[in-house]
Amino acid sequence: MKTLLSLFAALSMSLNTLAAGLQHVEPPNWWVGMRDTSLQLMLHGSGIADAKPTLAPYPGVTLKASHRAASANYLFVDLDIGPDARPGELVLNLAGTTLRYPLRARMPGSAEREGFGPRDAIYLVVPDRFAQGGSGSQGGMKEGRDRASPGGRHGGDLAGMRQHLDYIAGLGFTQVWPTPLVENNSATYSYHGYAATDFYKVDPRFGTNDDFQAFVSEARTRGVGVIQDIVLNHIGAGHWWMADLPAPDWLNQWQQGYTETHHARMTLQDPYAAPSDRQRFTDGWFTPHMPDLNQRRPELATYLTQMTLWWIESAGLSGIRTDTYSYSDRDFLSHWSARVMQEYPRLNIVGEEWSPHPAVVAYWQRGKRNHDGYASSAPSMMDFPMNTQLLAALTEADGPHTGLTKLYEGLAHDFVYPAPGNLVLFDGNHDTPRLFSLLGRDVGLTKIALAYLATTRRIPQVFYGTELLMQSPVERDDGRVRADMPGGWAGDEASAFTGAGLTGEQREMQDWVRRLFNWRKAAPVIHDGALMQYAPLEGCYAFFRYDAGHTVMVVLNKGGKPVELPTARFPERLQPGDHARDVMSGRDFVVGSSLSVPARSPLILEIRR
Amino acid sequence: MKTLLSLFAALSMSLNTLAAGLQHVEPPNWWVGMRDTSLQLMLHGSGIADAKPTLAPYPGVTLKASHRAASANYLFVDLDIGPDARPGELVLNLAGTTLRYPLRARMPGSAEREGFGPRDAIYLVVPDRFAQGGSGSQGGMKEGRDRASPGGRHGGDLAGMRQHLDYIAGLGFTQVWPTPLVENNSATYSYHGYAATDFYKVDPRFGTNDDFQAFVSEARTRGVGVIQDIVLNHIGAGHWWMADLPAPDWLNQWQQGYTETHHARMTLQDPYAAPSDRQRFTDGWFTPHMPDLNQRRPELATYLTQMTLWWIESAGLSGIRTDTYSYSDRDFLSHWSARVMQEYPRLNIVGEEWSPHPAVVAYWQRGKRNHDGYASSAPSMMDFPMNTQLLAALTEADGPHTGLTKLYEGLAHDFVYPAPGNLVLFDGNHDTPRLFSLLGRDVGLTKIALAYLATTRRIPQVFYGTELLMQSPVERDDGRVRADMPGGWAGDEASAFTGAGLTGEQREMQDWVRRLFNWRKAAPVIHDGALMQYAPLEGCYAFFRYDAGHTVMVVLNKGGKPVELPTARFPERLQPGDHARDVMSGRDFVVGSSLSVPARSPLILEIRR
Repeated sequence: MKTLLSLFAALSMSLNTLAAGLQHVEPPNWWVGMRDTSLQLMLHGSGIADAKPTLAPYPGVTLKASHRAASANYLFVDLDIGPDARPGELVLNLAGTTLRYPLRARMPGSAEREGFGPRDAIYLVVPDRFAQGGSGSQGGMKEGRDRASPGGRHGGDLAGMRQHLDYIAGLGFTQVWPTPLVENNSATYSYHGYAATDFYKVDPRFGTNDDFQAFVSEARTRGVGVIQDIVLNHIGAGHWWMADLPAPDWLNQWQQGYTETHHARMTLQDPYAAPSDRQRFTDGWFTPHMPDLNQRRPELATYLTQMTLWWIESAGLSGIRTDTYSYSDRDFLSHWSARVMQEYPRLNIVGEEWSPHPAVVAYWQRGKRNHDGYASSAPSMMDFPMNTQLLAALTEADGPHTGLTKLYEGLAHDFVYPAPGNLVLFDGNHDTPRLFSLLGRDVGLTKIALAYLATTRRIPQVFYGTELLMQSPVERDDGRVRADMPGGWAGDEASAFTGAGLTGEQREMQDWVRRLFNWRKAAPVIHDGALMQYAPLEGCYAFFRYDAGHTVMVVLNKGGKPVELPTARFPERLQPGDHARDVMSGRDFVVGSSLSVPARSPLILEIRR
Repeated sequence: MKTLLSLFAALSMSLNTLAAGLQHVEPPNWWVGMRDTSLQLMLHGSGIADAKPTLAPYPGVTLKASHRAASANYLFVDLDIGPDARPGELVLNLAGTTLRYPLRARMPGSAEREGFGPRDAIYLVVPDRFAQGGSGSQGGMKEGRDRASPGGRHGGDLAGMRQHLDYIAGLGFTQVWPTPLVENNSATYSYHGYAATDFYKVDPRFGTNDDFQAFVSEARTRGVGVIQDIVLNHIGAGHWWMADLPAPDWLNQWQQGYTETHHARMTLQDPYAAPSDRQRFTDGWFTPHMPDLNQRRPELATYLTQMTLWWIESAGLSGIRTDTYSYSDRDFLSHWSARVMQEYPRLNIVGEEWSPHPAVVAYWQRGKRNHDGYASSAPSMMDFPMNTQLLAALTEADGPHTGLTKLYEGLAHDFVYPAPGNLVLFDGNHDTPRLFSLLGRDVGLTKIALAYLATTRRIPQVFYGTELLMQSPVERDDGRVRADMPGGWAGDEASAFTGAGLTGEQREMQDWVRRLFNWRKAAPVIHDGALMQYAPLEGCYAFFRYDAGHTVMVVLNKGGKPVELPTARFPERLQPGDHARDVMSGRDFVVGSSLSVPARSPLILEIRR
């Protein structure tokens, strides 16, 4: 695999084929052997719109059509790259200009690559805040470094992430999701990456496209896949399109002036939604700095789809995380996700639908039979509903429908999902307050949350720093939530990576997380096993994962006192005389008529009869 | 109709046909012309189990079989009442005893009767607490009257309800739902009616079966239907079966001793539920005083189904409210509801599933395509989820998913229901604290809640006394929630019925409720019209009901300040220049560029262009 990736990296030369007079050719290359043979190039250059392109004969490749949009400076060229086409260079003649366009060979097995899934655990990193390794350069970007500012660029980069892959893999994680790495050339708040100014270029402050490929490649050698964070809904106000839009309807424009989305995402499922409200949700902008893309424009839909495929193929990704999923045009999402899954049938896409309602999140998952006939092809979604229930479970008093019952009833709601085991359940992310802070800086409750993440029927995702009990305000405060990882910068007093300067509590937690996720990595019963749960009683909630050969029992004791749980409560899965091994302590014992669960702790037991 | 009902009442003689040695013959009569021709009699008498019954020849009627259960004192006799059978008296010979069994004619149109529905508004009454009219007698019952005790019998009766039908109808209600009226002969807490000791007999403290029929009949003449509250899940410990169970498995018995349900109703939908947990939910008892029926016992299933049909047919009901719906055996409920709807295809059944989750309540509604293939035939369910959202909407601070957004997103969830307009939405019931108290004794918020009930796409149900701003503790306190209706007893200082002694605030509210529900009664656009809603903004939530000829706009302003709503926010349904009539004040005006909504008030406008 390494050899193939090196070969691939070598092929990924910078685009030295750009014809004179062309400012952009996108995608910058393509591949032979894609399942869908169509390819539409966006050519951008002064006055190019009315060029009548011709293609030098190339076996298996046809120039189907070309057309312009409103701007005189864009030309869309439709090619067909047939199944018999071989790698090489297309030669397109455009009113006297010659464009040499690379057609590459795909990596063997590329289409069949397996995406992230239930056997994986995902580590979420904010690259600007993780570690500085030296691959970044200012590169003429508008915003410089200011590590003292919570909303400024702190200087983390691809080399920093690459240098600490051993740390990530050592914690037991098998996937890493960095927030977006593409160019965000804006004067402020450029560090978060969700305001692209170039869809095809890694931000130079992180490194180059080659640095990204090297990172993915090196992660792969450690058994760690990389999930790319892609934004389909909007761009940054500094995107090069903004100086010269291909067409006025390239963006969602509002006659009455700037209109912001009201975030009423249920307009899309609501049988009673006013059309104007639905439009405001989808077409309203996030901020004046994030122009909202109109994916109903066919060339833009094609552009975004090809851009996604380009990164998967060129970087060797194991999946896509799609930002602000439902805010894009709904029909576009259907086609976009279908096309991605057509090219990579075993890949995974996880969409962000920030709703506490299972019925809303389920709407977007592949296989859901929806009331309105809508069909998505995204195999996974972020499990915001269960994240909400988990936090409530551990902070609310227990009642008929509050506290632990929310966790129990939340999981029982899995019947609304077509594939609940493929949802990504997270402890937190770059937009939410830190887990440890939300749980009142209670280490026991934090362990319960992580134990649940690691053992329930979900793909777990952990936000960098949770293993260090990193804190934040409990109200949203992006800059502080995305604080620097200790040890990521030369001169840091403490280091997550060496352990130097960490408190005893931090080291204990880091070690606990390491044991937990390394155990999970080697526990197929957690990846694929069945689940059986019991209604919470007396502050304890218990469930089992099991298959033909293994049983794991998980008990979450939220209360401040040890609990003796009667074994008879679990007749289907536990009997006196069974052998139990406490996964986290290694202690072995024989199950009696009751089980002792320590106060405010998770208990994870491997059961053998 | 009145003539028919009188005729019917005359036929409903007390069971003077009981053969010597028989203590019970149930059902006490049946009808010719039922769609399902089968009838199973339960005969109870000393040593009757092994009698070999014979039927004197009767055209169209066949004795199919008979069998005993464990007890020597029960015999189950299966008859077929064919389509050609005429009314009359069957003669059954039982080991020397002769049973003369009445077969009656059905009321014309009985099968086609229309049940309660979206055109209706339901008034919920606790008969013991509503009014004393003189039909009740102690009748040898164990518990006497103690009006001073919150949990005692206060002496309300059928005559009391009957005397105040004008009051109920005058408020604009078209259906009345009394909590159960059947005999509850227990030493304490007999007033609530949910612990039957005889399924076929009205409790003498309320009156007789004839009094009940007269009540229904007189209600009908005022355009008011009656919904009977039926309990299928359990009986009272004093039920006559308890002295001599037909079979040990007539009840859900627990080898390990008394076992209470844990109320984990989601065990029925949960794909991960432990079978033992599911059993504990369904078969566990409510209290030691409420033996839990095992509807998997075929004779009991038949008994409960026939009992339901018997009341519908004999009393002339417009619907059934089914207590603790999901606690009964799930397959039984499927067959029970199908059989009731087979006999009365336009009737309505509303089930009580006390869950805040739409996906759970939807599971039980007729037409829902469930994940597990389960099919119910109950056309309606109590809308506990929306009741929960309504209360939260008016008491929580507004946020992305809190406060008014809960009302908006709650209604948007209608996509999970097969027939959301047929759900019953209530302000409260006999088990919940009083609305006015839950809303902090705020008259404005109370009006908002009632305006929502009256105008959204639901069947509204109001708890007696809400129109008087009756109060209760905000934690559950049954006795005080079910306080006596003022004026229901001779000597009461205040009276809901005459207005005497009410505070100005109470009189104003009562009048407001009267105007609201009388307006609703005459507004088909509310019964059948479409609904369009807009996401809440700035403390205001607005929706429209509309059809080809009418538009009603409803605005709920929860905040303490008047709001000017821009007309342009509602382009689909409102234009400057439209004529508006404020339904509650009668004020007419022309819509300008904005709408003034008073502080903490609902605004209901009829819009004409």
